[in-house]
Amino acid sequence: MTYRFSAPMTGLKPSAIRELFKITQQPDVISFAAGNPSPDAFPSEELGELSARIFAGMAGFVLQYGLTEGYMPLRDAVTQRLKTQNIGREGDMTVITSGAQQGIELAARVLCDAGDVVLCETPSFIGALNTFRSHGLKLKGVDMDGSGIVPESLESALKTVPNIKILYTVPTFQNPTGITMTLKRREQVLELCAKYGVIIIEDNPYGDLSYDGEPPPAIKSMDTEGIVVYVGSFSKIISPGLRLGYVAAPAPITEKIVVAKQGEDVHTTLFSQVLAHEFMAHYNLDLHIAKCRALYHRKRDLMVCACARYLDADIIKPGGGLFLWGTLKNTDDSMAFYRRALDKKVAFVAGSVFLPDTDGVTPGFRLNFSMPSDEQIGKGIEILGGLI
Amino acid sequence: MTYRFSAPMTGLKPSAIRELFKITQQPDVISFAAGNPSPDAFPSEELGELSARIFAGMAGFVLQYGLTEGYMPLRDAVTQRLKTQNIGREGDMTVITSGAQQGIELAARVLCDAGDVVLCETPSFIGALNTFRSHGLKLKGVDMDGSGIVPESLESALKTVPNIKILYTVPTFQNPTGITMTLKRREQVLELCAKYGVIIIEDNPYGDLSYDGEPPPAIKSMDTEGIVVYVGSFSKIISPGLRLGYVAAPAPITEKIVVAKQGEDVHTTLFSQVLAHEFMAHYNLDLHIAKCRALYHRKRDLMVCACARYLDADIIKPGGGLFLWGTLKNTDDSMAFYRRALDKKVAFVAGSVFLPDTDGVTPGFRLNFSMPSDEQIGKGIEILGGLI
Repeated sequence: MTYRFSAPMTGLKPSAIRELFKITQQPDVISFAAGNPSPDAFPSEELGELSARIFAGMAGFVLQYGLTEGYMPLRDAVTQRLKTQNIGREGDMTVITSGAQQGIELAARVLCDAGDVVLCETPSFIGALNTFRSHGLKLKGVDMDGSGIVPESLESALKTVPNIKILYTVPTFQNPTGITMTLKRREQVLELCAKYGVIIIEDNPYGDLSYDGEPPPAIKSMDTEGIVVYVGSFSKIISPGLRLGYVAAPAPITEKIVVAKQGEDVHTTLFSQVLAHEFMAHYNLDLHIAKCRALYHRKRDLMVCACARYLDADIIKPGGGLFLWGTLKNTDDSMAFYRRALDKKVAFVAGSVFLPDTDGVTPGFRLNFSMPSDEQIGKGIEILGGLI
Repeated sequence: MTYRFSAPMTGLKPSAIRELFKITQQPDVISFAAGNPSPDAFPSEELGELSARIFAGMAGFVLQYGLTEGYMPLRDAVTQRLKTQNIGREGDMTVITSGAQQGIELAARVLCDAGDVVLCETPSFIGALNTFRSHGLKLKGVDMDGSGIVPESLESALKTVPNIKILYTVPTFQNPTGITMTLKRREQVLELCAKYGVIIIEDNPYGDLSYDGEPPPAIKSMDTEGIVVYVGSFSKIISPGLRLGYVAAPAPITEKIVVAKQGEDVHTTLFSQVLAHEFMAHYNLDLHIAKCRALYHRKRDLMVCACARYLDADIIKPGGGLFLWGTLKNTDDSMAFYRRALDKKVAFVAGSVFLPDTDGVTPGFRLNFSMPSDEQIGKGIEILGGLI
């Protein structure tokens, strides 16, 4: 039987990274490919202890259906936490989502119809790009430099491209480049989007993981017009397997998100929500984050040093997050390098998968430093260096 | 600021039932409204014990990212279980979803573009209807009688309505009517859909909860053409809060579902998946289901008896599931009855919310018997009887 699929799904391929994940689970592969946090950063013991308490005291609650908006104590805790970063305006509402991924997806699908245009950084997070594609949205890349989105490129798109509904941005420790948008640029981007009536989806999964001082305030914290949808995540600071994220946005938008979420998964796993709340209530999340930071700071430095020593490529040293972006010097396309590395059992992600244009090529590549061991970082980068 | 939303989301309202859920959490309300399983049916102790084992032995695994397709041992266990019911063909694939709701949503969105038509029973499950609406799909209701979908009505739609892509059906202990499609009708429905090239989404969350003998085999078990997408759930036999469902369908369809799911929530909460698998591995799921059955069988009988004694309405006695469907005798519309009942602090769901036509009215109403206590069933039905 030949099946007919929806127009956007007909051509869409699985994320190259999720597919790589299958290869990199082989034990003899050194993987810089995933975006996984280190298992050493999971508060496993604390979560195990809290889990026992939850099953002893509120099993009937966590096993039953819950509200689509999320577990109220967790929503309140997130809202309070965001308030300390000046995130959240009068009339905003926080809803819990099944990972930040769902927050991005829901925001896009309540705001856009098939054929509408989403602006994004070039390169950008493939998980977001693919979800936009899966809904038939068109992607238009905007240039970045070391300070983030280039305002001239953004304004040129805003002026000339019809039906732009959203700018999707990861302004802090961006995935894949590690670049952080400067304060000045954040102000310019916000002003331009307000001028042209475009909603900003600000995706901030890495903001807590800073290694060289605090990043600039969130774009959302400067929003006076109510045009920023802020998406956050517990994946990088507690656990990704729990699938917990959140959206903080003006209530008219979050109310639509709730309606769409009802039809998508009814609500996010209650056990995950209660567990995260209990962790925030009974342990010091900031102290835990500080430990994650120290671990990743060291790994970032290790990888930067190994690259300086072995790898003849331009490297952007990220101020936070989980990724280091490299650019090959004597080629336009990193795909051949990627394939030769896989042959040598070293995996990373070729930069082209992060491009809004699926036919585009780039000499860039992404290296993850949170997941590999210290030894693997040294050995893997040395192998990569030998291939250049 | 005035926000513009996507065309399908602009008019869509939250599910009346999910909204009712907020009212019915008030302690003095007798609620026949929800579709919640009884907390007495949760294997809380067993799950608590398994949870401790999981955190002791595989915390690093359940807290990390997983594969989009789902936790392989759970996928295998589900596939094996379905095989005992003759569900699953050569070349099929089982994927784990975040509740059956996500399975229905993903199947619809990989198979349909906005504007395409979904056929459904009249009345049908509102959670499915709303997810179809949220993607801009058009609903066309097909008539039912006590034996399920009326083949003449189905064929008339298939012949005359353009762009039909899917028939959505809950053939066993249907939500909201409790009606079970006969074997003969299943064969006819399958044959008609095959003839007109329409995919069937067979949603079977209640199949295990039979009180008067086994229901007919799943439509999927008779499918020789590969046109049935089977959606199942752990919500009614283990726990809804875990958000665990699955889709078993021909691989070309499930592969697209996996790509769409990547962009939606990356994967289903791993803890939930592992917990369900451990429960199936270390306890006897069929024995547990037998206990649920006994509990709900008794409650079904209690409610049927109370209706016979107090309620002057036509009642369909369901052979399984969680719902009893009533029809008022001297009116076309149950909304006034619904509102008067709420004033008396008794909640149920007016039948009109289950209609594919949002402007439609019906004298029907849905009563849930799994969640209320035995006392509440007697008292609540007596109050309702006084209102007729």
